[in-house]
Amino acid sequence: MTKLVFISSGYDMSPLAPAIIAAAPELEVHAFGTQEANDAQVAVCWKPPAGALRSLPNLRLVHGVAAGVDNILCDPHFPAVPLCRVVDPDQARAMSEYVMWGVLHFHRRFDQVLVNQRHASWTLPEQTRASDCTVGVMGLGEIGSRVALDLLRAGFSVTGWSRSPKDLPGVATFNGREALPAFLERIDTLVCLLPLTSETRGLLNADLFRQLRPGTKLIHVGRGEHLDAEALLSALDSGQVGGALVDVFPNEPLPSDDPLWQHPKVIVTPHMAAISTLDTIGSQIAQNVRRRVRGEPLLNQVDIARH
Amino acid sequence: MTKLVFISSGYDMSPLAPAIIAAAPELEVHAFGTQEANDAQVAVCWKPPAGALRSLPNLRLVHGVAAGVDNILCDPHFPAVPLCRVVDPDQARAMSEYVMWGVLHFHRRFDQVLVNQRHASWTLPEQTRASDCTVGVMGLGEIGSRVALDLLRAGFSVTGWSRSPKDLPGVATFNGREALPAFLERIDTLVCLLPLTSETRGLLNADLFRQLRPGTKLIHVGRGEHLDAEALLSALDSGQVGGALVDVFPNEPLPSDDPLWQHPKVIVTPHMAAISTLDTIGSQIAQNVRRRVRGEPLLNQVDIARH
Repeated sequence: MTKLVFISSGYDMSPLAPAIIAAAPELEVHAFGTQEANDAQVAVCWKPPAGALRSLPNLRLVHGVAAGVDNILCDPHFPAVPLCRVVDPDQARAMSEYVMWGVLHFHRRFDQVLVNQRHASWTLPEQTRASDCTVGVMGLGEIGSRVALDLLRAGFSVTGWSRSPKDLPGVATFNGREALPAFLERIDTLVCLLPLTSETRGLLNADLFRQLRPGTKLIHVGRGEHLDAEALLSALDSGQVGGALVDVFPNEPLPSDDPLWQHPKVIVTPHMAAISTLDTIGSQIAQNVRRRVRGEPLLNQVDIARH
Repeated sequence: MTKLVFISSGYDMSPLAPAIIAAAPELEVHAFGTQEANDAQVAVCWKPPAGALRSLPNLRLVHGVAAGVDNILCDPHFPAVPLCRVVDPDQARAMSEYVMWGVLHFHRRFDQVLVNQRHASWTLPEQTRASDCTVGVMGLGEIGSRVALDLLRAGFSVTGWSRSPKDLPGVATFNGREALPAFLERIDTLVCLLPLTSETRGLLNADLFRQLRPGTKLIHVGRGEHLDAEALLSALDSGQVGGALVDVFPNEPLPSDDPLWQHPKVIVTPHMAAISTLDTIGSQIAQNVRRRVRGEPLLNQVDIARH
């Protein structure tokens, strides 16, 4: 009998169990810390506590539940077993849906309308054409490009910024630090889809917000460490930033006393922008467990030495 | 000198005056009931009080401010003058944006997430693929077809229902009353974009809601008179309807004591889904007034006999 154990600090992974069992009914799934989990051969992880994996003597496979594995490899006691990640072709589409909702939310003034509803106030907000609304996408990798082109197809004016030059038909692109001011000063909504690097860490700060036109909206779906949350709150209070939709935070789950939760111009979402479906995650994990049991090559194995 | 009069019960149309004057500076615009308005040749209307138009002896043209003119033709004393409507190529796009926001809002569970935020609750909602979400569009005219095809392009499964048979590539279409149950039982979100006719008045009632799968969402952007609001509130309370985004109401502005404002599963918007810009409305009206003065053919004239 092959046993799986779920290990996460902060996330309840139990909704994933039925999806794994559906794909491989021969598996047993247990919670970390229980007697039954002690001899698990497979650990399925999101932000496992440091040392947790090392405590399992029979471990033969560690499986992430997302594309990124920095949340697992930051454990200094990561054991000498293979690590696999989930690679989901639907993730770019999911991210594009989330960003589209956010852009439409601000463009059509649903933010104002939802506030007005609380006071039963029938007040028509100003409505403009999508072509008069410029969305700036920071980060033009596979997902950023898809998001930019979907926005363009929906009628928005789209501009993009990335570290190295990119060519996207219909999208005015800027690259490099020196082009950042020219990019920032022309947009109505800023979408951050940057990867986390030493150059981008803390980039969404007071200095950047100052370069926006007053009232620019922010949609942040990059990494938590891009954002200086205090600077965002100040920029929202001064009106420099007109509203924010934020999906990623340096500490997740976002602590319940964090002021972002209560700010009237902030929408907090629980890192859901590009989450894979339980089916996709469960079936990829189940497939890899069977491969590991049979000694077959693993899918989406991470080259740990390169990390 | 050609004089225009604005006639509306409930709406302040005065913001439209500068847009008309900008397009035709020779025109004079007056409010209904003033001395100057009594010999107006043109009436620009949204829900004019019954009999108001008949009281203008010099009237030679009635102009609506939207695509629909049922709000004008319901006046039993509508006089024997030409009636024109506004046909705005941007309106289908605006409607499609609104519906896209609503479909994404429910599909990605932003409705749940916004409620969770009030309690600082970091709870990941279930996320599914767009292709596993079936949107049913009632009404497949020019705007409904555009909405259906945009949803299809965004990855949703789309089905449609209309009075007469329609052929839309990729959209499973149903037509006629007898096909309504088969259409209703397969959808996750219902979008009403029907015109208001004797057959569609009151169609969104308890009987229809009963035929939906429990938890189906409603996006209502047809006409206020399609909806039995009491039946909707019951269906929301029983869970039969899982949430509603409603833009149109029999009495607009929606009275401040209407229970729809306060229901936690209802989003009320102020008839904003497909509003035209003032520029577009003003220039179309100005152009038709000049055509009428010169005896030229009118644009977007309504065939009153067919109504």
